[in-house]
Amino acid sequence: MHTSIATVSLSGSLTEKLAAAARAGFGGVEIFENDLLASPLTPEEIRARCADLGLSVDLYQPLRDIEAVPDHVFARNLRRARHKFALMNRLGADTVLVCSSVSPDAVDDDSLAARQLSQLADSAHEFGIRVAYEALAWGRHVNTYDHAWRIVEAAGHPALGVCLDSFHILSRGSEPEDLEGIADIPGEKIFFLQLADAPLLAMDVLQWSRHHRCFPGQGGFDLAGLLRHVLAAGYRGPLSLEVFNDVFRQADAGSTAVDAHRSLLLLREAAGAGALPPAVVPTGVAFAELLTPDAEPVTGLLTALGFTRAARHRGKPVDLWQWGEARILVNTAATARRDGTRLAAIGLESPDPAGAARRAEALLAPVLPRRRGPEDAPLDAVAAPDGTELFFCATATATATATATATATATATGASATASATVADPELPDWRADFTDLPDTAVPSATRIDHLALTQPWHHFDEATLFHRSVLGLTAQESVDLADPYGLLRSRAVAAGDGSVRIALSVGAAPGDDTVHAQHIALATDDVMAAARRFRDAGGRLLPVPANYYDDLAARYEFADGELDTYRELGILYDHDAHGAFRHCYTEIVGRVFFELVQRDGGYQGYGAANAPVRLAAQQAGRR
Amino acid sequence: MHTSIATVSLSGSLTEKLAAAARAGFGGVEIFENDLLASPLTPEEIRARCADLGLSVDLYQPLRDIEAVPDHVFARNLRRARHKFALMNRLGADTVLVCSSVSPDAVDDDSLAARQLSQLADSAHEFGIRVAYEALAWGRHVNTYDHAWRIVEAAGHPALGVCLDSFHILSRGSEPEDLEGIADIPGEKIFFLQLADAPLLAMDVLQWSRHHRCFPGQGGFDLAGLLRHVLAAGYRGPLSLEVFNDVFRQADAGSTAVDAHRSLLLLREAAGAGALPPAVVPTGVAFAELLTPDAEPVTGLLTALGFTRAARHRGKPVDLWQWGEARILVNTAATARRDGTRLAAIGLESPDPAGAARRAEALLAPVLPRRRGPEDAPLDAVAAPDGTELFFCATATATATATATATATATATGASATASATVADPELPDWRADFTDLPDTAVPSATRIDHLALTQPWHHFDEATLFHRSVLGLTAQESVDLADPYGLLRSRAVAAGDGSVRIALSVGAAPGDDTVHAQHIALATDDVMAAARRFRDAGGRLLPVPANYYDDLAARYEFADGELDTYRELGILYDHDAHGAFRHCYTEIVGRVFFELVQRDGGYQGYGAANAPVRLAAQQAGRR
Repeated sequence: MHTSIATVSLSGSLTEKLAAAARAGFGGVEIFENDLLASPLTPEEIRARCADLGLSVDLYQPLRDIEAVPDHVFARNLRRARHKFALMNRLGADTVLVCSSVSPDAVDDDSLAARQLSQLADSAHEFGIRVAYEALAWGRHVNTYDHAWRIVEAAGHPALGVCLDSFHILSRGSEPEDLEGIADIPGEKIFFLQLADAPLLAMDVLQWSRHHRCFPGQGGFDLAGLLRHVLAAGYRGPLSLEVFNDVFRQADAGSTAVDAHRSLLLLREAAGAGALPPAVVPTGVAFAELLTPDAEPVTGLLTALGFTRAARHRGKPVDLWQWGEARILVNTAATARRDGTRLAAIGLESPDPAGAARRAEALLAPVLPRRRGPEDAPLDAVAAPDGTELFFCATATATATATATATATATATGASATASATVADPELPDWRADFTDLPDTAVPSATRIDHLALTQPWHHFDEATLFHRSVLGLTAQESVDLADPYGLLRSRAVAAGDGSVRIALSVGAAPGDDTVHAQHIALATDDVMAAARRFRDAGGRLLPVPANYYDDLAARYEFADGELDTYRELGILYDHDAHGAFRHCYTEIVGRVFFELVQRDGGYQGYGAANAPVRLAAQQAGRR
Repeated sequence: MHTSIATVSLSGSLTEKLAAAARAGFGGVEIFENDLLASPLTPEEIRARCADLGLSVDLYQPLRDIEAVPDHVFARNLRRARHKFALMNRLGADTVLVCSSVSPDAVDDDSLAARQLSQLADSAHEFGIRVAYEALAWGRHVNTYDHAWRIVEAAGHPALGVCLDSFHILSRGSEPEDLEGIADIPGEKIFFLQLADAPLLAMDVLQWSRHHRCFPGQGGFDLAGLLRHVLAAGYRGPLSLEVFNDVFRQADAGSTAVDAHRSLLLLREAAGAGALPPAVVPTGVAFAELLTPDAEPVTGLLTALGFTRAARHRGKPVDLWQWGEARILVNTAATARRDGTRLAAIGLESPDPAGAARRAEALLAPVLPRRRGPEDAPLDAVAAPDGTELFFCATATATATATATATATATATGASATASATVADPELPDWRADFTDLPDTAVPSATRIDHLALTQPWHHFDEATLFHRSVLGLTAQESVDLADPYGLLRSRAVAAGDGSVRIALSVGAAPGDDTVHAQHIALATDDVMAAARRFRDAGGRLLPVPANYYDDLAARYEFADGELDTYRELGILYDHDAHGAFRHCYTEIVGRVFFELVQRDGGYQGYGAANAPVRLAAQQAGRR
């Protein structure tokens, strides 16, 4: 199935856009008129550039307010249209889009519209061009797809068909039965299909359309349902993205194009029109890998938390630090000093690492070269949109035994350590086998990685959510706003259904903020107070929490005697939801990373978002 | 009249916010609860800090979903409230805000609400605190100010009154007659007035309220009308700004606080409740001043345009370049190399420079120190929000004579040069007298400065519009979006009614973009084709315009024979509006500045916005 993208959906000059679309695997483009007008290339040169890149020019839309107007106005419109048809011949575009008129000159007269569109199609036909008529959601008289089709049907011209646009159809709040009329349109009269999703905003539809469209799967429309209807009608033309979005206008065209094409592949899959390798949901976090120019500060912090250096990679400067089921790799391979310590990779326990990698690759995730020694396990890895390396792997039985011990210990307190007790399939490549055990033995503990919090580049937040959801098979939760003293952050969690993998994605208030806000690793323990005290007694510094916060807790909740005093003493924050309670505290920041100690009780599902403003303010205060 | 601001309206830590509010001249603050919770200062320390800064703590709002709930829920609420009243005593706040409940627990029972609010007021009274009850626009059962007042009236408790909030009242689309009920509330029962404006957006009211409020005069609400009603009712309490705005959360607190206080002063003036020195509308542009580390590139460009070096400042390294009535000062006083050439100051012809400066100073514009020699004219100058220096001045008769000549020349062609023919009052300080004439005489010409285009810092666009409108007395036009290849710009013009002063303010797509987009000086000529040809023949380089642009013009308009060829040859762009036509072209960029040559015919009012995408794309192409 041919895929296409309107150049208005991407940032940059026309040639930048074309190169990005081709690299991401699109088969064609819609050339947006302003992009052509602003380009120093002639139409012939643009056509040649597209041909070199393997792109067809699927659509051009240079005409506005054409039909259902007085005849002298239509004569002018036809003159303009013939100019544009000649241009389209030079450009190699054979379909012209005509949107329903928004002009105050337009009259509510379907037969006039049909007659004039028929005349336009006559003229187009001379140039070998087809006319695709589309109902704008805010068209003056024609604003539904079935109305546009009635006019096209009445015109009965072979060079005249309809263009269906998901935004214009679904933004009107269509009920499922409203889409049934699509089946009445013969497939060969659907000349074109434009696709855009959008968040479900209650706002002026024109502003919504021009600024807030997004790629399929990133908004709230049922695009798969629409596509199924259109394919059932017999449509076999391009699936084309036309997305007006303020953020995409600023973002790098290359990564936006990849995000765009991935969204189309997923839409095809969701509509049952194109198979992909199935998702392999990860079953746990095998490890988190920190890249650091100087291991000392971070290993000091790990030691104070309770980690021990359990093993060393056979061939690389990488140590495995372990605390119960929480495993942190500390990698001192070359990294620039100014980058500081950062969370560079995540190992995901996978029941089928090769399958997981196949799906990721099919969905355009860059597959990472296997930089490994001849003896190393062949680990599959891809890059997430933010550059984090994701390893699909299995933790071997030796470790699983340690887990079993930890689980046994944890059982007494009822803590939720069982989810990570993966017993790896001996058939699977064992990343752990690349490491040589060190004499220090880890103290058994129920500790495990509760969640990882990753700061996303500003322009790619929705891409990150779609990636984690669709490539990894995680479930996305609602997006929440978090107030930092210097702007609102947005945060959205993606998780496996059983909570064994949780990733909190967040994005700053403005481009560039991803370097301000740190990433973090949250460690689940069954006694956060004991863990915090041990950390502090070992010389670790916990983020200070203002006394006013505890006065507020006292006003809002009733705690057991002394409990609040302990929170206050240690800097522990408290939250609760319909399921249970959450207690958590934070270490200082090292480089771009900090740690959180958390205790989930009674099935609490959140991430302590209510406390984020206090945490963020305290971190900002530490920077001054 | 006491002015106040909610700390949520400003960016930063609580102490940063307090300092910024005090510096901008506010008399008090509303402490936002999250700011207190996140502050390491105790309530007593916050109180002392406010006292040191001369700020009263006018309001605190720690309570939610208090009233019209089952009694056992209310008992919990009362417990929480008493905790908070004790805190307010420590903080020195004597008014608590209670917003109407949004809880699903709340019942639709005004007598229950009145009874529970009365109990709450009893409790508050013990602490010396008054309760101000406010109807949220999305309150579950109580969402209009008159409903809230009926409940307060029924309760009949001396420590219970209403808080009126302009957003909650006006966001419901109130008709003027809807405000008449305010007169029914005794002034002493209006305990508080919160003010916020907002752009007229058709969107979900909760999202609108939380993200898009703005300062009075920057949105679409009739706040002056509301304030008149509230004052007529006898209210004498604080005017307090409570503005939730995503941009202000990121912006520097100091300049936001100044913007905020200026908006309140203007609102008072508009409601007839506080006089300011009257606005003195400028009558022309006396000069534009370029600051440059190296005069050579820019004077080369000026020479090619037709400017001559007409005079030299007696005591500073500043040359006056003149072309007809267009005057450019080229200042080579110390400027950092990396800043490049930039537009640093504007001289505005003023019939009353001292009066203009008085208004600017009363409206918190920084008054610039008079860096002048003993003989120099005492020019009044202030800084605009973007740092541009604005000189209020008069151009003396000697120059006015030259103007008269130029005007006479221009009359033949009907060009609009008359607006700048200011004959300065001999009483006024003449900036021109500080300059010694040079032998080169300017060729008489009708050229004048048509408009100046200034790029605004991202966080201060609405402030800039309000400043130019209210401080200078210019009229603001509608804001328009301009598509740059790398993001949407927003642009808004402010102008004197007769067009003698026009300033186009624009802002980039993201913070930091103000350094990417250049400022420019547009020169009005009565023959742009001749001016462009002369510039090119003198070695000047005009911005190249793509051939595709002219093919589009050919499709859209019918031109006289050869006209389009001339446009094409020279790179002239064309636009028209209901009044007339606009032809314009651009020079290359020098430092951060470029020039535009424009010809307005038939009373064209715009700035060629339709051509901005082509211009911006060509400028971006030049950067690659």
